[in-house]
Amino acid sequence: MLHRDYSGQNCSIAGTLELIGERWTLLILRDAFHRVRRFEDFQRRLGIARNVLSNRLQTLVDAGILERRLYQEHPARYEYRLTEKGIDLWPVLMALVHWGDKYLAEGGPPVLIEHRDCGGVVDDHLMCERCGKPLTARDAVPREGPGRVAA
Amino acid sequence: MLHRDYSGQNCSIAGTLELIGERWTLLILRDAFHRVRRFEDFQRRLGIARNVLSNRLQTLVDAGILERRLYQEHPARYEYRLTEKGIDLWPVLMALVHWGDKYLAEGGPPVLIEHRDCGGVVDDHLMCERCGKPLTARDAVPREGPGRVAA
Repeated sequence: MLHRDYSGQNCSIAGTLELIGERWTLLILRDAFHRVRRFEDFQRRLGIARNVLSNRLQTLVDAGILERRLYQEHPARYEYRLTEKGIDLWPVLMALVHWGDKYLAEGGPPVLIEHRDCGGVVDDHLMCERCGKPLTARDAVPREGPGRVAA
Repeated sequence: MLHRDYSGQNCSIAGTLELIGERWTLLILRDAFHRVRRFEDFQRRLGIARNVLSNRLQTLVDAGILERRLYQEHPARYEYRLTEKGIDLWPVLMALVHWGDKYLAEGGPPVLIEHRDCGGVVDDHLMCERCGKPLTARDAVPREGPGRVAA
């Protein structure tokens, strides 16, 4: 699994990057958090080569981050869902979102991640800005932000 | 700056990954947070090719994440320091650390990130587990953890 050749590093960051640091992998996970589950949907949203997508999904399944489930039998069709281990990557994605929103999103955030119960925004400490609750991936929903550009 | 070809993605995650998603870049930043500043020290700790390191440092300087400063005049020697924009990437690194510590560190975390003032561990919400204070990069210090392997 040492795709990125960080094997000499006794480090949790290096180990994590070996699993999720490949090109496209974090965007696949982003889409999985947005409830994308099917190969065709990932492919259409990401616009990447099918063999690359297939390879990345397999790596994530092998790592126990995504689970592959049969959802149709004739013909056989599979969907990909985040496992608990995958859901635990939510803080990584939120940290990337927050930094990008602060430094790159000139027209404002393209997507706002909000607390499902009260509509407050998720802050840098993964708490709800409005009600103060510590949030997990399950408490959060994406909503269109001011910087959204129509596809 | 579209190294990873995510340019069609109107997304703060994709934008951030274009700047910091290249191989080795997050480990360079990890070391920068551990107060590594000089080219030779990065090179020795990471064990990567000098041209790759040089390229990654330049990308980070161009992005305003690291600042290059002259620290010796004859011969000219430079060091690399995190800017505010770079320091704001601390939550990304902490999220990677936490996930790796949970899922990959079989002998326990190799490094513990602690609250400088009280010695409590930084939790998943970037708060001090002991005193409850919301923490920033400046409040945190690394300490050898139980999973440390001697180099």
